[in-house]
Amino acid sequence: MPDSPFIRDVPAARALDAWRRAREAGGCPDRLPAERVRLEDAAGRVTAEPVWATRSSPPFDAAGMDGIAVRAADTLGASETTPVYLEPDGYDVVDTGDPMPDGRDAVVMREHVHYSGAPMASPAELRAAVPPYQHVRSIGEDVSTAELLLPEGHRLRAVDLAAAAAAGATDLLVRRRPVVAVLPTGDEVRPIGTPTGPGEITDTNSLMLAAQAREAGAVAHRLPIEADDPAGLARAVGAAVTGCDLLIVVAGSSAGRDDYTARIVAELGTLAVHGVAVRPGHPVVLGVIDGTPVLGAPGYPVSAALTFDIFAEPLLAELTGSVPRHRERTRAQLARKLASPLGMDDWVRVRLGVVGGTMVATPLPRGAGVLTSLVRADGLLVVPAGQEGHHPGEQVEIQLLRGLDEIEQTIVAIGSHDLVLDLAASALRADDPRVTLASSNVGSLGGLVALRDGLCHVAGSHLLDPGTGEYTLPYVDRVLGGRDVNVIRLVHRDQGLIVAPGNPLGLTGVADLARPGVRYVNRQRGAGTRVLLDHELRQRGMSPEAIDGYAREEPTHLAVAAAVAAGRGDAGLGIMAAARAFGLDFVPVTREPYDLVVAAADAGSPRLAPLWALLQSDRFRAAVEDLGGYVTKEMGRRIR
Amino acid sequence: MPDSPFIRDVPAARALDAWRRAREAGGCPDRLPAERVRLEDAAGRVTAEPVWATRSSPPFDAAGMDGIAVRAADTLGASETTPVYLEPDGYDVVDTGDPMPDGRDAVVMREHVHYSGAPMASPAELRAAVPPYQHVRSIGEDVSTAELLLPEGHRLRAVDLAAAAAAGATDLLVRRRPVVAVLPTGDEVRPIGTPTGPGEITDTNSLMLAAQAREAGAVAHRLPIEADDPAGLARAVGAAVTGCDLLIVVAGSSAGRDDYTARIVAELGTLAVHGVAVRPGHPVVLGVIDGTPVLGAPGYPVSAALTFDIFAEPLLAELTGSVPRHRERTRAQLARKLASPLGMDDWVRVRLGVVGGTMVATPLPRGAGVLTSLVRADGLLVVPAGQEGHHPGEQVEIQLLRGLDEIEQTIVAIGSHDLVLDLAASALRADDPRVTLASSNVGSLGGLVALRDGLCHVAGSHLLDPGTGEYTLPYVDRVLGGRDVNVIRLVHRDQGLIVAPGNPLGLTGVADLARPGVRYVNRQRGAGTRVLLDHELRQRGMSPEAIDGYAREEPTHLAVAAAVAAGRGDAGLGIMAAARAFGLDFVPVTREPYDLVVAAADAGSPRLAPLWALLQSDRFRAAVEDLGGYVTKEMGRRIR
Repeated sequence: MPDSPFIRDVPAARALDAWRRAREAGGCPDRLPAERVRLEDAAGRVTAEPVWATRSSPPFDAAGMDGIAVRAADTLGASETTPVYLEPDGYDVVDTGDPMPDGRDAVVMREHVHYSGAPMASPAELRAAVPPYQHVRSIGEDVSTAELLLPEGHRLRAVDLAAAAAAGATDLLVRRRPVVAVLPTGDEVRPIGTPTGPGEITDTNSLMLAAQAREAGAVAHRLPIEADDPAGLARAVGAAVTGCDLLIVVAGSSAGRDDYTARIVAELGTLAVHGVAVRPGHPVVLGVIDGTPVLGAPGYPVSAALTFDIFAEPLLAELTGSVPRHRERTRAQLARKLASPLGMDDWVRVRLGVVGGTMVATPLPRGAGVLTSLVRADGLLVVPAGQEGHHPGEQVEIQLLRGLDEIEQTIVAIGSHDLVLDLAASALRADDPRVTLASSNVGSLGGLVALRDGLCHVAGSHLLDPGTGEYTLPYVDRVLGGRDVNVIRLVHRDQGLIVAPGNPLGLTGVADLARPGVRYVNRQRGAGTRVLLDHELRQRGMSPEAIDGYAREEPTHLAVAAAVAAGRGDAGLGIMAAARAFGLDFVPVTREPYDLVVAAADAGSPRLAPLWALLQSDRFRAAVEDLGGYVTKEMGRRIR
Repeated sequence: MPDSPFIRDVPAARALDAWRRAREAGGCPDRLPAERVRLEDAAGRVTAEPVWATRSSPPFDAAGMDGIAVRAADTLGASETTPVYLEPDGYDVVDTGDPMPDGRDAVVMREHVHYSGAPMASPAELRAAVPPYQHVRSIGEDVSTAELLLPEGHRLRAVDLAAAAAAGATDLLVRRRPVVAVLPTGDEVRPIGTPTGPGEITDTNSLMLAAQAREAGAVAHRLPIEADDPAGLARAVGAAVTGCDLLIVVAGSSAGRDDYTARIVAELGTLAVHGVAVRPGHPVVLGVIDGTPVLGAPGYPVSAALTFDIFAEPLLAELTGSVPRHRERTRAQLARKLASPLGMDDWVRVRLGVVGGTMVATPLPRGAGVLTSLVRADGLLVVPAGQEGHHPGEQVEIQLLRGLDEIEQTIVAIGSHDLVLDLAASALRADDPRVTLASSNVGSLGGLVALRDGLCHVAGSHLLDPGTGEYTLPYVDRVLGGRDVNVIRLVHRDQGLIVAPGNPLGLTGVADLARPGVRYVNRQRGAGTRVLLDHELRQRGMSPEAIDGYAREEPTHLAVAAAVAAGRGDAGLGIMAAARAFGLDFVPVTREPYDLVVAAADAGSPRLAPLWALLQSDRFRAAVEDLGGYVTKEMGRRIR
């Protein structure tokens, strides 16, 4: 790579500054050119000059009420006992909005006028004097000629267009929309809709970045995927910069791929920044080629999305001279300890919910590849570079990704994973889009602990007590002892071994898991299914060490099934519905109850009412039975 | 009107309920039909079914780091002192994202591997054992086949599209966009771009309502303006309902015009509601014709805009099964007493600013015709029907119309009106869109009182003390006695009589205002220009009663000029720039200073720094001098 003086691993603010200086030096325009558009095409555009009224609104003095227009001086002395009578040539009947007739300076409401005969043909009797300009809307009451209506750099809303029209405009000078080109790269990257072979991934990033650019008001083009060939890539970049105001080059997913982009930017133009102190998102490239800003985005999707927010969006706002998007903020209590690397701004995705009157933030998985963490996030917590994280219970500031109204109504479920909860989430929302059931899967025990710590409304649990053979209640007593909780039965479900189609190894039950050559896929510690396995092993006097793969932990039934389906394991304990979802076979081991544990104080709250109603619905029960392996006859029964 | 059983003057919630029932009875669909669209066309659309993953992401176990893939069991016992050597067939070199080779279950980072020769040709030396699945991204880590990715009723964002693509989707089932037709009515209403004669007004409402519908995600059509002819209007309404999911009929501006719409809805279909307890917006009509919801919107623009928010937007959300828009809220201290009518929800537009660390809300003009009150509003304060208003200083909840970031940076100026402040507002924002200078015109004295009460950062003032002939400072002492304030000179400006072109009445100065037949246009009490007039009258021994029009008060110089330009007055005291803006003549009376009064604590704050910098700019001074009647040689000088 040439020795261009770029900077490396700097905080986002310094990186943005360096990029701005490089753009100035590289001949990039400060603002986009302006263009004139008709008012009806101007919504969402940004004004390129101040809008001054060229006409007053209203354009004349107008009656503000239905009634008669009079000369106020003529009504002097009128009272209940000494009415004043105006002859027909001394008043005019007016409706609201009518221009004031010449010589009239006040309006008397219709209700306060009495006639001996027909209006306009008989005198009007007034029983009170009126002051001048009563019920008169003055010319320019709304806006006056030569008044500043809108400043430059204003993003036009519906009301602005109407006010501009009232003030005499028919078109407005606005900034041209920025044009963003997105260039995906990588030998392993395949277009959406194309089958992917081993080691290949779908190009989801260019779809996402183009949509982000459109959300920010830009016109976006997606270019064809370029292979990892330096010469070809350089040609594609050189061609792309001529047709856009910002080129985003998306790196493939493997480490070091950003080096390609950095090298090409340095060769064809100016490399300003390579690597920023932001996690996830670190391998960002910022530069300029032929007067066009270039942004190299990392291949991991969460990194790519946040890179757009942090670097592309402020640039697009600057090009149009508008205010960057504002995200609503809220204070929340952090559900658990959060460790962050020193020296990096750490962008943590969180779920939010109001539990016991407190807004609680629970961090979501932090991997840069876990895009669903961003899909499911209610907000972002930025831990600045100088800080090593937060203590549990600490108050933190969250940038919201969902409306606070919605978050406040959300039912927060933490605990064991079951497909019935997914189905319920979907059914609740289909009935009423304001109702959200947000599930985090941390296992049954984790759910009870979360309920104890005031982090959720509902804990899904199916914990077997080996001593008593009883489910759920012994653990509730142990973990939540003394708390007033209700326990509601959700379903009974079949647990068994999820195995490849046709059960090629002929597994018949837990005893076979110790057979040589059987690779097991386990659930994490604290999961009810893990407790069940350990119980079954103990009953048979089997040792965990005898199980190949006991250490391989997956967080959900579906993840276990996915591992078996991919041939990376031969068996995993899980629910029948997960096996079915992957077309796998299922060897039943036991039937167990799955319960919802709820603080008694919450159980009767309006927030949870839609959930209880759903559990009584025949349609919902039928849908659950359809999943396979579920029995719903006790659904909704309160067992404590 | 037929005796259909509609309800009248009900609260908004009851009106919405009645409309919903009428829609159900009238055969309106609950949700719009669904359609399948490609992912790249789906941004902003609302899902019509839950989105379940049909593929896991990642679709295979993948290396999470660059390094070598190994079998963890082979590394057992490795340590600094007892390294383990893996033969080339016992490891594979992998990059981040590569699929894990068969038989490997862990990755050792590149940095932790040592070779005696070339990688893959010599044994790899490991100085630490690794646990199984170290640095391996499990299949389905992001999302697993059969997992619920998105619920029904979800408005699709960029990240959702990417996640759906990663989970195997290429298109999605979404709700059809709602189609909204807007039908403007009224004999006096003229299309935008058409000259308006006396008593005519421009059709700004259909432009606004269509843009509001598009902001809410709908497709909107504007229909031609219909005259106030019942038969023609009924024909137009009957035709329009067949082509849309919501018809909005916009009434003309005069009172009682809503009766036309109500009558037609009752005749052609079902009238559910006529009149709601909402101010402004009262004469709303809600009904159903031929299975299509119909909304009759009032003609006053603020009423029309709020009617859309309150009634149309929830309907559009319901039709797509999505969550209605959420507005950010903030608490603020009310700047002054607010009286509201009992029995009506009162939607009050407010300006906001942070002064002395407190968020302060100042009500804007409340007329339903003052659309600029909505354009300039930072938020809405809803005073519910059961409440008669608020005391000054009371804490109120505000729905925000602008980002809190912007509001917190806004310079709040209250006081005398001068065009230089408009010019400054525009120049500041053109330089940096995050800087807003928000001026409220309440006159010089009102500004000083507002500064005293902690309602603004800057008070524009040009108050003459008749006793001393001095400007500003004596009033500062009187109103702000003891406060530590700075006074900054903005300009000197010429005040004089604004008269018709050619000065047809040959007015030479204040003395001529008492001449019979001269109609004066005054400024409001507390305005510096009013003080100046009173001073000039006193000096000449003239009585206010001698001035015809002394009682006609206008709030700004421009409003005075507008009245003269419209021929509704012959003269008004004001600044030369206002006369120029309307092409009027100007008879100079005096030259006066215009000052900015600032709390000393604020004067050096970063918020005000851009303003002080602007006052030093030659370009800005030149622009001010160009307005006419201004002298800028003392601009920015601190006089106290």
